[in-house]
Amino acid sequence: MNATFATWHHHFEQPRANKLVETAVIAIILFSALLIGAKTYEETTRLEQWLLVLNTSITVFFLVEILIRMAAEKRLRNFFRQGWNVFDFVIVMASLVPLDKSDMVLLARLLRIFRVLRLVSLIPELRVLMAALVKSIPRMGYVALLMFIIFYIYAAVGSFLFADIDDFLWGNISAALLTLFRVATFEDWTDVMYATQEAYAWSWLYYLTFIFLTAFIFLNMMIGIVLDVMQRESVEIEIENGEGEAAELHGLRADVHELRDQLTRMERLLQAQGAGLSQLDQARGRR
Amino acid sequence: MNATFATWHHHFEQPRANKLVETAVIAIILFSALLIGAKTYEETTRLEQWLLVLNTSITVFFLVEILIRMAAEKRLRNFFRQGWNVFDFVIVMASLVPLDKSDMVLLARLLRIFRVLRLVSLIPELRVLMAALVKSIPRMGYVALLMFIIFYIYAAVGSFLFADIDDFLWGNISAALLTLFRVATFEDWTDVMYATQEAYAWSWLYYLTFIFLTAFIFLNMMIGIVLDVMQRESVEIEIENGEGEAAELHGLRADVHELRDQLTRMERLLQAQGAGLSQLDQARGRR
Amino acid sequence: MNATFATWHHHFEQPRANKLVETAVIAIILFSALLIGAKTYEETTRLEQWLLVLNTSITVFFLVEILIRMAAEKRLRNFFRQGWNVFDFVIVMASLVPLDKSDMVLLARLLRIFRVLRLVSLIPELRVLMAALVKSIPRMGYVALLMFIIFYIYAAVGSFLFADIDDFLWGNISAALLTLFRVATFEDWTDVMYATQEAYAWSWLYYLTFIFLTAFIFLNMMIGIVLDVMQRESVEIEIENGEGEAAELHGLRADVHELRDQLTRMERLLQAQGAGLSQLDQARGRR
Amino acid sequence: MNATFATWHHHFEQPRANKLVETAVIAIILFSALLIGAKTYEETTRLEQWLLVLNTSITVFFLVEILIRMAAEKRLRNFFRQGWNVFDFVIVMASLVPLDKSDMVLLARLLRIFRVLRLVSLIPELRVLMAALVKSIPRMGYVALLMFIIFYIYAAVGSFLFADIDDFLWGNISAALLTLFRVATFEDWTDVMYATQEAYAWSWLYYLTFIFLTAFIFLNMMIGIVLDVMQRESVEIEIENGEGEAAELHGLRADVHELRDQLTRMERLLQAQGAGLSQLDQARGRR
Repeated sequence: MNATFATWHHHFEQPRANKLVETAVIAIILFSALLIGAKTYEETTRLEQWLLVLNTSITVFFLVEILIRMAAEKRLRNFFRQGWNVFDFVIVMASLVPLDKSDMVLLARLLRIFRVLRLVSLIPELRVLMAALVKSIPRMGYVALLMFIIFYIYAAVGSFLFADIDDFLWGNISAALLTLFRVATFEDWTDVMYATQEAYAWSWLYYLTFIFLTAFIFLNMMIGIVLDVMQRESVEIEIENGEGEAAELHGLRADVHELRDQLTRMERLLQAQGAGLSQLDQARGRR
Repeated sequence: MNATFATWHHHFEQPRANKLVETAVIAIILFSALLIGAKTYEETTRLEQWLLVLNTSITVFFLVEILIRMAAEKRLRNFFRQGWNVFDFVIVMASLVPLDKSDMVLLARLLRIFRVLRLVSLIPELRVLMAALVKSIPRMGYVALLMFIIFYIYAAVGSFLFADIDDFLWGNISAALLTLFRVATFEDWTDVMYATQEAYAWSWLYYLTFIFLTAFIFLNMMIGIVLDVMQRESVEIEIENGEGEAAELHGLRADVHELRDQLTRMERLLQAQGAGLSQLDQARGRR
Repeated sequence: MNATFATWHHHFEQPRANKLVETAVIAIILFSALLIGAKTYEETTRLEQWLLVLNTSITVFFLVEILIRMAAEKRLRNFFRQGWNVFDFVIVMASLVPLDKSDMVLLARLLRIFRVLRLVSLIPELRVLMAALVKSIPRMGYVALLMFIIFYIYAAVGSFLFADIDDFLWGNISAALLTLFRVATFEDWTDVMYATQEAYAWSWLYYLTFIFLTAFIFLNMMIGIVLDVMQRESVEIEIENGEGEAAELHGLRADVHELRDQLTRMERLLQAQGAGLSQLDQARGRR
Repeated sequence: MNATFATWHHHFEQPRANKLVETAVIAIILFSALLIGAKTYEETTRLEQWLLVLNTSITVFFLVEILIRMAAEKRLRNFFRQGWNVFDFVIVMASLVPLDKSDMVLLARLLRIFRVLRLVSLIPELRVLMAALVKSIPRMGYVALLMFIIFYIYAAVGSFLFADIDDFLWGNISAALLTLFRVATFEDWTDVMYATQEAYAWSWLYYLTFIFLTAFIFLNMMIGIVLDVMQRESVEIEIENGEGEAAELHGLRADVHELRDQLTRMERLLQAQGAGLSQLDQARGRR
């Protein structure tokens, strides 16, 4: 039975490697995603029936695929050790929730929409992109913390000074944080400023220092990250290149050392001959 | 007849290479483009007559040029194999559509406006720029897909939750997608948020996560593309440079190997002499 | 007594190196920061009592830590020579200001909020980030000066031309500077332009040149700074790499020079032998 | 007299090299610039009198400095050949225009404001910055042309389709160009779109393609320029570095060639000795 399963698994893996099947699945997912969007417009009954068939076949396809992948593992625990497997499993299970004749039709449909996320695990290029994104999160964490500190202090000062002017915008620190985020996105920030400037004429200083500070830190963060990634890349290239060159230099040095050894042998020969000659000379002289 | 044509073609290519004619053609295209813009103001009859002559001469110039380029090819099919030729052909044909005494005067004039696109194929620097832009499209495709997935899921959730609050902004997934694009460009996004926050106090979380996610991915995309292009460039430079250095190192190594061969020859000579000397010595000893 | 103190200092430094204590302190600071934000909402009496204990213990912890660090220095003057120490001292002192039963409760609480800044000196990564930010200030100074000159001239022209149209926006140079900053952030800049365009139809030229100029300089500044930092980094890498390679090349050259010395010795031997042989030959000839 | 002048010129150049005088001049210019801004507020008579003295002394200082620089040239024509000299001359002359008791007081004061531009030629760092900015203009020219073509075609289509909806925004190509620039800066662009969407439901496609196209080209332009500058810099560094290494490699190769010459000499010696030995051998054999 194991052999039969292996054949099955093999058969199944083959078409998945096949670009044609993959693009077909991607196309159907995107198409059904767009149609669900359209469905909220009006009921397009003819197309919908076609889509229902395609949709069900994709659900079955995904279910079969994930079951085979689970069966391929010797222990089920190994399957769930890989993040992408858990990710796929949750999405496939969510799309199996029955959605007809229930009160939660809308919620169930929403869950079905999440199936579009399977595109990420289906397309290798998107997996690479996601991995790169996840890798850059810790790098950004400390900058986010620094930003939070600045936002927090400005929000504290803002809610302390401007609370009486506009309770909705500056009523408490949370509200002030949201207002400052709005200022940071330049979203009608002058309206906010003009209102507080009536009470405190110098309040433009508060906004301008805040904007400069956040823009300055954001700019530096971007530059820092670009440089950080670049440096690592360039070091890799250098090492790669350097290895080629270093190997060449090393080989050259080994050649030169070989020459020295050869020369040393020859020098000894010469010295021996010199000794021989002088003996010959002495012998000639003695005669 | 072929010879005559070659002379014609040659004559025609010559002035095109001539910078003066090229800049004149570019200037006239730009000038007539700006005047068409002005024409929608008022009828400037005097200048217009002058322009009509210039315009017709450019149209004839382009027509003659493209006909000669077509005739220069042995097979017409070869001409249409190059993208720029098809591009030029379509623009020249569009500017030949007669536009006087017709109902579609406005549409015809619009077509004539597209002649400004010939600037792209006329100016070599713009062709290079366009080639670079076209080359970067596939690289951006996957990021666009990832962006679409995020937009789509947020739009699905948004149209599910906020449809009752504002039907125009959140009525269906398409409307929600457009609203989210508006939020992503920071275009009066707080108005959208304040409206939904009245019903769902926590909805700021929806907008902030969306903004952070899209900004984060966009930032990473930019950095990724910069690094991608840069790495390729730097690899090219390294290879170029490396070749010069590698050649030098290679030459050096060949020199060292030559030295070894010479030394080996000398060592053999020395050994032979050593053998000769010891024979001499033995001979002396025997005597 | 000195020995006892050293043990104390040592005991104290140990847990600070301990990641667990550090993260606990950071968590409490962040948590109390968020709760102060929440306190402006309503009085959460239960949690507050807990927080009061935690808060007081952090205040004591910081006070003890800074006193020990001060005592560890042989001279108190040395302690205040390091910027971070002054920074820590001010923050700790500010959090010691009594805030109950006083008129300035709000101000005192505000001062307490600044304690969140101690995160910067507590977390090494943030200190590195801050050092990098401070280092980039002088580099940005000259660009800021150039920007100010452009803003100033446009503000002078703007307040001269548009003062009668809108006194609030263009009434004097200071107001015009603020309005231009608003235009530079694209904040409802068309409203400003449409108003002045009614009086001066060509005033779009004023705004467009200003936007292009500031955007152009800002772009160049960003590129300049990226390149500046990058060049310094790459020079460092090159020097590091170069040193490795240069050392290898140097070693190789020393080897080759050694070979030359050896060859020179051998050549002298050979010449001596040649002389000996010719003597032998002459002797043989004389016999 | 020439000698006296040279001494004068020398005396004058000395203090200008002196950082203290330079910063004093810069400070006074900035201070008077800010005060002119304040003057539009109210008449600050006390400070103004002080400023008048300082202002006049700076005017005299600049006048004397430029006259000395003009006299230092052998021919006046040479002085005006350098761009910065012409720049300084125009600014100094403009600040000499008498402004009291005239109808054009405001205009004259405006001219005086331009004196702030002398900061650019005074501060070496700003001159370097300006030179870098001017150098990057031609590089940006072609991208600007490409942008203009896209703006122009969209403006033509826009004024053709939307002219009836909003004459102010889309009435003619010029108005449409300005409206599109507004859309490109994300300035209330949804207001523009929502208005046209009522007549043409699909008009979101017009705006989104425009935004993507301009953003895409702008992004590519930025990356292109960064890479362009970087490549040139890195090539310079490589050449510099390469030269050091190439010189080392060259020296090494010369050393190796010297070794070969030495070896060739030694080989000839050995062959001569070998010939001598065999002669000796033959002689011995003959005996």
